[in-house]
Amino acid sequence: MSEDTVSLVLFSGTDDKLEAAAVLATGAAVMGRKVNVFLQYWALDSFRADRIHKDHGVSAEAGPEGAELVARQATQHWSETLAQAKELGGVGIHACALSMEMFGITKDDLDPLVDDVEGVAAFWAEADGPVVFI
Amino acid sequence: MSEDTVSLVLFSGTDDKLEAAAVLATGAAVMGRKVNVFLQYWALDSFRADRIHKDHGVSAEAGPEGAELVARQATQHWSETLAQAKELGGVGIHACALSMEMFGITKDDLDPLVDDVEGVAAFWAEADGPVVFI
Amino acid sequence: MSEDTVSLVLFSGTDDKLEAAAVLATGAAVMGRKVNVFLQYWALDSFRADRIHKDHGVSAEAGPEGAELVARQATQHWSETLAQAKELGGVGIHACALSMEMFGITKDDLDPLVDDVEGVAAFWAEADGPVVFI
Repeated sequence: MSEDTVSLVLFSGTDDKLEAAAVLATGAAVMGRKVNVFLQYWALDSFRADRIHKDHGVSAEAGPEGAELVARQATQHWSETLAQAKELGGVGIHACALSMEMFGITKDDLDPLVDDVEGVAAFWAEADGPVVFI
Repeated sequence: MSEDTVSLVLFSGTDDKLEAAAVLATGAAVMGRKVNVFLQYWALDSFRADRIHKDHGVSAEAGPEGAELVARQATQHWSETLAQAKELGGVGIHACALSMEMFGITKDDLDPLVDDVEGVAAFWAEADGPVVFI
Repeated sequence: MSEDTVSLVLFSGTDDKLEAAAVLATGAAVMGRKVNVFLQYWALDSFRADRIHKDHGVSAEAGPEGAELVARQATQHWSETLAQAKELGGVGIHACALSMEMFGITKDDLDPLVDDVEGVAAFWAEADGPVVFI
């Protein structure tokens, strides 16, 4: 097994992709990998403190049937899955500075799950393993 | 050239993305890389035995013109491309246990291209190279 | 920090994803990484000489509000960001031969940012690090 850091770039803010991301992050953390999550664009928007528990929809391809399926099976919200992954240790969640600017928001607007704001160079400095764009 | 395993997480179930995935898997196998495919969400749905050869649409951005283009150029179905990649050896296709649960299906509901069902920890245990989320 | 090549497979041709890709490519180049960009499907379409500066829309999930946000914040076009990344050195942009065939176009139809046309085996031959599918 590799010891490299797993870097997850979250771009999409729909609940199906964020659920998939939370499951992958947790699995990697369980297997002892360091995990760096970098929040961009619509994913960052979904981590706002006042929106994180709202309905973020699903991918366009899922349709209403898929949306219902995702809603029905979710035994816990993806933010709770991520919170548990963080408790395992080695999981950091960073907001992309450029995307923060685009939305005109500050760290205080984000859910406390987010550790800090960082630039894309800082992201790459830690990306010594797979980089997964979701 | 790297000798690391190429891990492909297939999330999207549209024909354009599955075609792209099949081409990337084949190219990696041709170059002697081990390839692990992990089927989640809408991609898993497209690998059901009774649906794999149906029309799965294309990405929302493609539009009707794009859909026609994809249909017209496909000299062979992405499932055949994947079957050929498997014949090269070193290509495994695994269904995500959590997504199986979401759809309420069992291994028997899937096309024989799928080797088995595994959890996300088993996926990460083999992911010692790039992880490509499609 | 890893010295591996960063491989970016651009599949999506919307302006939000291409912007994200350009920022990630630039950040990797700034950090001294070699960057290989491989253009497929709708992303390749957006690199045509006569379309690169047109409006390519945004991801379906963004909605009209998101589209406006992306348009308003873009201080420079993603193609200029990529041009600057290329000036840093170590950034190559390659068109996927199969996708070229699908669109029925030749190298002359593409913006000069694109260096050449290559097959998927050539892509994997250089992919000794993370592979990011966008």
